[in-house]
Amino acid sequence: MDAISVIRAKRDGTRLTDAQIDWIIDAYTRGEVADEQMSALAMAIFLNGMDRAEIARWTAAMIASGERMDFSSLPRPTSDKHSTGGVGDKVTLPLAPLVAACGAAVPQLSGRGLGHTGGTLDKLESIPGWRAQLTNGDMLAVLRDVGSVICAAGEGLARADKKLYALRDVTGTVESIPLIASSIMSKKIAEGTGSLVLDVKVGSGAFMKDIGSARELATTMVGLGNDHGVRTTALLTDMSTPLGLTAGNALEVRESVEILAGGGPADVVELTLALAREMLDAAGLKDADPTKALADGTAMDHWRRMIAAQGGDPDAPLPVAREHHVLHAESTGVLSRLDAYAVGLAAWRLGAGRARKEDPVQAGAGIELHAKPGDHITAGQPLLTLHTDTPSAFPYALEALADAIAYAPANTEFTATPIVLDRIAQG
Amino acid sequence: MDAISVIRAKRDGTRLTDAQIDWIIDAYTRGEVADEQMSALAMAIFLNGMDRAEIARWTAAMIASGERMDFSSLPRPTSDKHSTGGVGDKVTLPLAPLVAACGAAVPQLSGRGLGHTGGTLDKLESIPGWRAQLTNGDMLAVLRDVGSVICAAGEGLARADKKLYALRDVTGTVESIPLIASSIMSKKIAEGTGSLVLDVKVGSGAFMKDIGSARELATTMVGLGNDHGVRTTALLTDMSTPLGLTAGNALEVRESVEILAGGGPADVVELTLALAREMLDAAGLKDADPTKALADGTAMDHWRRMIAAQGGDPDAPLPVAREHHVLHAESTGVLSRLDAYAVGLAAWRLGAGRARKEDPVQAGAGIELHAKPGDHITAGQPLLTLHTDTPSAFPYALEALADAIAYAPANTEFTATPIVLDRIAQG
Repeated sequence: MDAISVIRAKRDGTRLTDAQIDWIIDAYTRGEVADEQMSALAMAIFLNGMDRAEIARWTAAMIASGERMDFSSLPRPTSDKHSTGGVGDKVTLPLAPLVAACGAAVPQLSGRGLGHTGGTLDKLESIPGWRAQLTNGDMLAVLRDVGSVICAAGEGLARADKKLYALRDVTGTVESIPLIASSIMSKKIAEGTGSLVLDVKVGSGAFMKDIGSARELATTMVGLGNDHGVRTTALLTDMSTPLGLTAGNALEVRESVEILAGGGPADVVELTLALAREMLDAAGLKDADPTKALADGTAMDHWRRMIAAQGGDPDAPLPVAREHHVLHAESTGVLSRLDAYAVGLAAWRLGAGRARKEDPVQAGAGIELHAKPGDHITAGQPLLTLHTDTPSAFPYALEALADAIAYAPANTEFTATPIVLDRIAQG
Repeated sequence: MDAISVIRAKRDGTRLTDAQIDWIIDAYTRGEVADEQMSALAMAIFLNGMDRAEIARWTAAMIASGERMDFSSLPRPTSDKHSTGGVGDKVTLPLAPLVAACGAAVPQLSGRGLGHTGGTLDKLESIPGWRAQLTNGDMLAVLRDVGSVICAAGEGLARADKKLYALRDVTGTVESIPLIASSIMSKKIAEGTGSLVLDVKVGSGAFMKDIGSARELATTMVGLGNDHGVRTTALLTDMSTPLGLTAGNALEVRESVEILAGGGPADVVELTLALAREMLDAAGLKDADPTKALADGTAMDHWRRMIAAQGGDPDAPLPVAREHHVLHAESTGVLSRLDAYAVGLAAWRLGAGRARKEDPVQAGAGIELHAKPGDHITAGQPLLTLHTDTPSAFPYALEALADAIAYAPANTEFTATPIVLDRIAQG
């Protein structure tokens, strides 16, 4: 077996054999197959695809490249959620303690943000004292005591994926359904959750711009999960406009706490509850009532304990950016468009995200929305507030927003896009 | 400008702009673009292609990545030949002194073999004392004194191509017409020859297995040469069976000397004269008579002076392999097939070629043919003699030859494939 013959096979449109997949993932993990060989193979996969059996074997080989976690000692059923990433998507923050409050254990291994979508760990790190790195033992202890934990994935899970993910990022081979699906699912299956709900975003602010490719990705991942004994379902959800009214680290924590306090923007509440019901269903807790857990403060109580268990002070004031700039509405009418990608890019340019893995993020940077599509607008009213510690970024952020906003005449009948577009339960 | 945006453009089927091509070739040469990025781009080019304007710019950027040589101080017109590589293709050896004997200057910068086709420098290095490495000054001096020189290309020509060629070799991105054409032509144009004849091989022993792709490659290269002011033509020549009666380093030198002495196999003589006429025509020496120069010994005289000028002893006995094994004909009839690729692979396994750049080659190893397709054969007569210093290689060589030979009934009318299949003068 050698790398060139595997690359050539995929290059020439042949399906890879199980032996070829097992060998190349193992050899790449060990460093025997070089980065330049793996990137050529990734491009061949990008352009020539993989069938369902190939993706399943590729995923299994990536799982086998690292350690597997085991939550079977916990007294509760485990359920996890993964989002493919969107602008203003802070749902993990209220969702994990909410589902824990309803009786499931939620081991939420998360990542940092890269590009225009924020990272859950970056958001939580804006809480003074909170730390993302836990040992496996500490993680189990928090899960046992609180019921939910949000922390960084250990180095040992799906080692091949760690290398391949970093490689794809610099070689133009990210947006491939076989590679995305196997990357996400190898980590989630290795993590050892009993059930999993996927939030597959669709729209300008998501990887998947159209519902067809989002459905294909969701179906692929649901199949992979169920084939590996993880009860997996997916919701396809709208990401044409930002979720909620904030995009940025501390801004999104603030909004998450509003949700846990029983308030918050309707779209975030709706999506949080929809995902909570999916997770509780998948975990076999069909009688749980997440609406009640939000309303009666038990979700908030779990949040406070979860944050405190990782060194965070839930009562500490959140960081605020040093400078802000208000963008006012140019027209009177109905706000017909507020583009998710543009808002994400602008927030990123303001300092909420990073260009390279090593870069720091600004806790206070980001964007507050004062209106959402469908709202009636009067010319001159505040539309967005931009926050940053580096005001030299304002022009670049405003440039990103130049074509992001559109208005319709005031008498336009506006039908809001529903948040949940579809549900996939069979791969 | 960044590598990912260039990779994405080609990945998504867009044509690359001049600025993108100039930037990525320069940045790759400088090490700013990493090997894993260039290999992803090479695979995208392999699968999505480049149009004629892109290939031209890519070639120009590779030329600009290194130094250019200049033979304008020579009193003779320069002409060079490049073969895309075949089994038993020793034609450069008699051709260069023959064309020099007819009045042109032949600056033949050559390479070593990799894989089943031999390398001109490996062949000449079987001559005791002969050395491939010359300074640019020594090279010019030999050209001035003898009229022809065969030596290793300096490190400075087409630096981007040197890196990219090595990268393609390990990433399954070799057999791409845009990448092959730009690689060959960037070196030949940078070398500074006034005219160039391309010998594009077609058949099992060649890179191009069918005449359609060979014609496309030849047309692409002829266009690139002429666009850069190098008078360029191409012959498409047959490589379904080995050229001549030998494959292997010293064995091919011996056959080349037979040609220069006025003998040798008819197919090698025919191809050598056809290429000599093309080169002399392209160099403007339309009255030269290469047939006469072979017959009257002036070509041989130039060969001896050329070898001696590089330290070689033209009278020294050539190395002979320590062991040999004779393969006998199994049937009586007409030899209908003697596959070039199989013979090349067998010679390579006997030690005539190398698996990795660093490997040595055996001077005496290789294969002698005692018959060619079309010859009448009696069962039991010697068909091939295998030579090697490492007799443990015999079984592997014989395995390569297992399906290489076929016979037709003795009364079969056999029409030999002509050596020269087509001529391309317009890109």
